Amino acid sequence: MTLVETPPRGRSGRAARRAERAIHSTHGAVPYITRGIPTYDILGEESLQRIEAAADRILAETGIDFRDDEEALRLWREAGAQVNGVNVRFEKGMLRELLKTAPSEFTQHARNPANSVQIGGNNVVFSPAYGSPFVMDLDKGRRFGTIEDFENFIKLGQSSPWLHHSGGTICEPTDIAVNKRHLDMVYAHIKYSDRGFLGSVTAQDRAEDTIEMARILFGREFADQNCVIMGNFNVNSPLVWDGTMTTGMRAYAKAGQAVVLVPFILGGAMGPVTTAGAIAQALAETMAGCALVQLERPGAPVVFGNFLSSMSLRSGSPTFGTPEPAIGSMVIGQLARRLGLPLRCAGNFTNSKLPDAQAMTEGTMSMLSAVHCGGNFILHSAGFLDGLLSMSYEKFVMDTDLCGGLHAYLKGVVVDENSLAIDAFAEVGPGNHFFGCQHTLANYETAFWDSDMSDNEPYEKWLAGGEVDAATRANKLWKKRLAEYVAPPLDAGIDEALQEFIHKQKASKADQWY
Amino acid sequence: MTLVETPPRGRSGRAARRAERAIHSTHGAVPYITRGIPTYDILGEESLQRIEAAADRILAETGIDFRDDEEALRLWREAGAQVNGVNVRFEKGMLRELLKTAPSEFTQHARNPANSVQIGGNNVVFSPAYGSPFVMDLDKGRRFGTIEDFENFIKLGQSSPWLHHSGGTICEPTDIAVNKRHLDMVYAHIKYSDRGFLGSVTAQDRAEDTIEMARILFGREFADQNCVIMGNFNVNSPLVWDGTMTTGMRAYAKAGQAVVLVPFILGGAMGPVTTAGAIAQALAETMAGCALVQLERPGAPVVFGNFLSSMSLRSGSPTFGTPEPAIGSMVIGQLARRLGLPLRCAGNFTNSKLPDAQAMTEGTMSMLSAVHCGGNFILHSAGFLDGLLSMSYEKFVMDTDLCGGLHAYLKGVVVDENSLAIDAFAEVGPGNHFFGCQHTLANYETAFWDSDMSDNEPYEKWLAGGEVDAATRANKLWKKRLAEYVAPPLDAGIDEALQEFIHKQKASKADQWY
Repeated sequence: MTLVETPPRGRSGRAARRAERAIHSTHGAVPYITRGIPTYDILGEESLQRIEAAADRILAETGIDFRDDEEALRLWREAGAQVNGVNVRFEKGMLRELLKTAPSEFTQHARNPANSVQIGGNNVVFSPAYGSPFVMDLDKGRRFGTIEDFENFIKLGQSSPWLHHSGGTICEPTDIAVNKRHLDMVYAHIKYSDRGFLGSVTAQDRAEDTIEMARILFGREFADQNCVIMGNFNVNSPLVWDGTMTTGMRAYAKAGQAVVLVPFILGGAMGPVTTAGAIAQALAETMAGCALVQLERPGAPVVFGNFLSSMSLRSGSPTFGTPEPAIGSMVIGQLARRLGLPLRCAGNFTNSKLPDAQAMTEGTMSMLSAVHCGGNFILHSAGFLDGLLSMSYEKFVMDTDLCGGLHAYLKGVVVDENSLAIDAFAEVGPGNHFFGCQHTLANYETAFWDSDMSDNEPYEKWLAGGEVDAATRANKLWKKRLAEYVAPPLDAGIDEALQEFIHKQKASKADQWY
Repeated sequence: MTLVETPPRGRSGRAARRAERAIHSTHGAVPYITRGIPTYDILGEESLQRIEAAADRILAETGIDFRDDEEALRLWREAGAQVNGVNVRFEKGMLRELLKTAPSEFTQHARNPANSVQIGGNNVVFSPAYGSPFVMDLDKGRRFGTIEDFENFIKLGQSSPWLHHSGGTICEPTDIAVNKRHLDMVYAHIKYSDRGFLGSVTAQDRAEDTIEMARILFGREFADQNCVIMGNFNVNSPLVWDGTMTTGMRAYAKAGQAVVLVPFILGGAMGPVTTAGAIAQALAETMAGCALVQLERPGAPVVFGNFLSSMSLRSGSPTFGTPEPAIGSMVIGQLARRLGLPLRCAGNFTNSKLPDAQAMTEGTMSMLSAVHCGGNFILHSAGFLDGLLSMSYEKFVMDTDLCGGLHAYLKGVVVDENSLAIDAFAEVGPGNHFFGCQHTLANYETAFWDSDMSDNEPYEKWLAGGEVDAATRANKLWKKRLAEYVAPPLDAGIDEALQEFIHKQKASKADQWY
């Protein structure tokens, strides 16, 4: 029984030729990026230590509540933390000591081994946005997401060579009962993508169903010995870990699967309005979560996550893709590296309701901060509009195009004999052009990232072509990609076993709709 | 006689109140930015040395042509360069030695002393885009620029607290004769702005007229002893300095005014298609230009400029705002700092013909690279669309808004007792919100950059407001700003003297239209 019958993803016609070319290009499709540029470290040692000391004080003096999870409290008590009711306080250094068992880098296996990703170190993995109740497109506007939308976004992701991961709850499939939709979501990731994905985390039994489906897919033995799935768990900031999350985290850890832990801090609401304080809080919350995972199973892979946001003075609304969270992410990156943990940071955020100039100003700023800060697993790389509330079809293809550009960007500047082009200067000489010279002919096909979203034509040609804007091009492109999508082959026996499991689980409980 | 009658720029109504608030905000208007974050240095010592060695070889083996400027050739001969016809070659180390007299930092005085800018060091100055023949807006589309457009853009720049400089040839005023328009352009900068500006460079007599007008404005003695004007001079890449430019450069230097020198390299056309080679070429060209300025007048302020671009494989068109030039700029920044020279790098570039998602994806990527690479004087900070060919009214206000955000971004993360908010955690505790806590009340007004371009409302409110996109908001905003614009007061005697000079110069020659 093999997981994949033929290695490359199916593609047809022009798309196949483009993909072919891309693979042979220096900026070509890769299972993940290995960065050629350093991280952007903006804070000095003294400031970093002050933030760490603030986090230590929060942990020792205010502590963190672990609610509705007796086993978590038991683990903390046993480890020597100071437990009062649900509040847990930690002596300075205790959590750092526990985190020493967490791996700095690990592999998440995909059902197509060519798509397995390395999380941590110098590696960067792009994954779609996560968690929107709504979807949007230019034709039909905003509406609640359905399983059809969910599948469409998986197909669009799979069609892009510039994502590396299939994501998780790309949008909520609201046409399926809340207590059953995780089964359909996990199945859709397995069926329509051959990349790694995130499982369900919204209840312990849903986490366990996810793990069981991963075992069916990968085989029990392989799944027990390797990371084949990750779960994305949110802190209930400020300073609360809910049992819903911690029981799920512990279920993933127990099964040897990876746990991504993410404080979600809107400055001034779930944390201080000043960035340094929000970062200290995030550090405290994440360290506590990661350490709990290590208590459950020392050595279980954890990812240090973060989500900073800001607030509009005028409207009181949360704001996304703004400067303060972007620059704050750089510091989060430094702190994660000091702990030796893989990092999940930022992504492509915006408040805009349309795939317009605001969407991509905010989106580009936050996405660049994610790669500059050293994010290893960049959730929310594609699709968000409307302040995390909507997945946009048009924005999704715009964002995957930006991800493509970042493949070129993260290579940095290659300095070698060929790239320095010394002979070309002698050949061309002052005042002449490089169009036809040897060096240009040998290098032009791989020199520059070539977006298939951007208009680079002269004005007159653009005018003659109907004065099309980026959003309209994106609208055409996602439809074309969906029309051309070909599912990666899946072993029929596995498919049947998965469907059987889903059927059994669904039959065992009544629908819950909220 | 004073240059300004009342110190602050005139503003009325809401604009005045906004400006007032901005000035009192921590992200408030400043005459220029002093960066609180380090530059983003992506290349290591060995690679930097290889690029420098390549530049040295280009200078020694291929050399640079200095065309139509006998005096420049005489200066080179006298300095010991190897001059063959118009080709000049330089022994390794010669140019670096000459550059030692160039200042690492200098002040460009504005007619309002509160707006004088510091060029170099940790300082960042934003200046509008430069050189487009066309202008665009959503109402009238693209057309040739006129003096009215030129004045409008100066007024829009002056109205924004987020620019620091009035720029130069913001658009070509094509309704005025080519040999006379420099007089109207310089006058418009003086009349409608009280910030520093760039003078004319397109012919030696135009450079000299500019300098004369600066002398009228600042008084001859002050102008002779201080930098009161800068000129932006382009290399005719590859490896050619034209007499039109070098005579202008020498005129500025002779008058003690600042010279910005900029290679303009479209990779694969005016330089190698590989970034490292294009950077080596740029380094050679800029060093030669800066050194010539030092030969003309040792100690004259020079700015190390750069402009890298790329090419579309599919259309063969030049492309702007793409990943390779963005990351290449970081290296240019490192090289400029190794020479100890102030840096002009990148700006806000795009190929898009509309103020849409593409425009701001490309614009944000290139503008961020300008601030990350350590650009001190960032020309082209606002307005470009259409691959440098058009100034857009809508894009101008979008870009100045981004400049505002970058004021917050460049502060970095402030780490002190207040920002760490230790007491707030004790006050709020786990699971409660920070909305009303002491720390939030004391800090919320200055915590976050507040864009006046972005929509941050909930979806329902945006829907009720007419589903307006960013471009439409920008269209309203530039009209509002023009309507509310108030000219900064200018001494009547100076105004009269300037007009007299312009009249005299215009009367002395026939119109040339090409």
